[in-house]
Amino acid sequence: MTEERFLELVSRYLRQAPPAVRTAEEDCAVLEGGRVYRLFTADALVEGVHFRSRYFPARALGWKLAAVNLSDLAAMGGRPEGALLILGLPRPPEPPWIEDFYGGLIQALSTYGADLYGGDTVRSPVLWAGLFLFGEASRPVFRRGGRAGDLIFVSRPLGGAAAALRYLESGHDPPEPLRRCLLFPEPEIELGRLLAEEGLATAMMDLSDGLLLDLYRLCRASRVGAALEEIPIAEGATEKDALSGGEDYALLFTVPPEKARHLPRLIPERRLYRIGHLLPETGTLLYRGKPISPRGFDHFEST
Amino acid sequence: MTEERFLELVSRYLRQAPPAVRTAEEDCAVLEGGRVYRLFTADALVEGVHFRSRYFPARALGWKLAAVNLSDLAAMGGRPEGALLILGLPRPPEPPWIEDFYGGLIQALSTYGADLYGGDTVRSPVLWAGLFLFGEASRPVFRRGGRAGDLIFVSRPLGGAAAALRYLESGHDPPEPLRRCLLFPEPEIELGRLLAEEGLATAMMDLSDGLLLDLYRLCRASRVGAALEEIPIAEGATEKDALSGGEDYALLFTVPPEKARHLPRLIPERRLYRIGHLLPETGTLLYRGKPISPRGFDHFEST
Repeated sequence: MTEERFLELVSRYLRQAPPAVRTAEEDCAVLEGGRVYRLFTADALVEGVHFRSRYFPARALGWKLAAVNLSDLAAMGGRPEGALLILGLPRPPEPPWIEDFYGGLIQALSTYGADLYGGDTVRSPVLWAGLFLFGEASRPVFRRGGRAGDLIFVSRPLGGAAAALRYLESGHDPPEPLRRCLLFPEPEIELGRLLAEEGLATAMMDLSDGLLLDLYRLCRASRVGAALEEIPIAEGATEKDALSGGEDYALLFTVPPEKARHLPRLIPERRLYRIGHLLPETGTLLYRGKPISPRGFDHFEST
Repeated sequence: MTEERFLELVSRYLRQAPPAVRTAEEDCAVLEGGRVYRLFTADALVEGVHFRSRYFPARALGWKLAAVNLSDLAAMGGRPEGALLILGLPRPPEPPWIEDFYGGLIQALSTYGADLYGGDTVRSPVLWAGLFLFGEASRPVFRRGGRAGDLIFVSRPLGGAAAALRYLESGHDPPEPLRRCLLFPEPEIELGRLLAEEGLATAMMDLSDGLLLDLYRLCRASRVGAALEEIPIAEGATEKDALSGGEDYALLFTVPPEKARHLPRLIPERRLYRIGHLLPETGTLLYRGKPISPRGFDHFEST
């Protein structure tokens, strides 16, 4: 079974009526909450699947666990508030591991305005960690709002994490900037919030499974297609890394052409990368004028 | 390292200032939330540690995952609202497994007023499932409010889950009522809420790690001791099962003697079991007049 089919099957069990605004096929669950919307998300990392302790220090594991969840909130224009941690441990951890792991987790959470409020620790034959993150948004952006003609942007060069992984899996040290892409990704909380609150982004998501697959998902939700032109590639990464490597945690968003001129003043010191535009044909994906398949990291098919 | 020591170490990383009201050493994190308090909890079940698929059907796993989390909310007098699920799966699940697992999960959640809003599914060498549950309480009850002289109650006979586990681990079928104690425990949402809202319980928690260990924790939080007299034992269970077997998910609560006469009209058809009273000596634990140690299921020491 593919991940897409699995998600389709389980989405039947999600509440889709109020107070739920959107649950399935988004980066966060969005619930009504009075004057603001309440956002909830959850993500887990498993040893041997998402990381190896051999090259993934405990501090990086803590940071990244927070970052991938924060990135889901960023993708909807949310403000993080709090988190709960569940931890599966093969043995009682040593105090230095606890200090590093929790230190990295808290550093990432507090950098973006969230606190840890509790959780659960259990024994497990394999090390894994799951985080639940909640926050709010005054004007959440969904994947489904893109319209033909909208310009497509990403928030930074892509492929760095995939390139770093190749180094580490083959026993080599990646250059430091690539290593940081994989081990200490930066969630785009500020940018996501500004794009949402200023009403600039029509559709938005974060890039976790590779640009092509994630863009395909955005297009399907918005019932449009996409034509990609130039894409920004992280130094040391390949074009393939940038197209389908995954784990970028950059923002992918669409902006109507007439509003694109407002982008440069959002965060003046940040460059944003225009990579193409949306097409009226649902599901069509073009790269430099030619059709391309939305291949990327699929959690089940890749095994 | 013992579980207690581990919890002590990690509690340094939990936010203890507003909006947090209580985080460490409670069944839920309690946050300010305007007119009501917001409650958050998370619990996980791991194959080979908390259950074996051989005798634990997918429907029971889904139900129990919801029930153990709901029980944490019950322990503070909370009303459940919503949940997010994290699932670690060794292989893509078959549709019947999905139907059973999610069916059991949703049945338990909806029975007690909660809905599933989202989550994450990841590959994992071992099957595990974590749930994040949120809700609210108008008047949460903590573990720390017990006073010397208060009467101690449990909400139902104890030891059934431990007795059922013994049958199943030795390859035998337990009698149906015992089997239900282990596989389909009932969280005490209604009773917990009434005890809290009527202002009857001074301290409350749910029984997950065995009466003695959990009562010891309640006593420590309340800075009192306890004298146990008769305890109710589930039919087919032993006295040891009831004292330290664990996984009962009954409520343990304390009530001032002058208020105890109001208990029978809370839920007229329910019998509640008075098992002893609190003592002024912090940490003292007596059973039928003799000192007894707070041994019970410790997640780390028991390995």
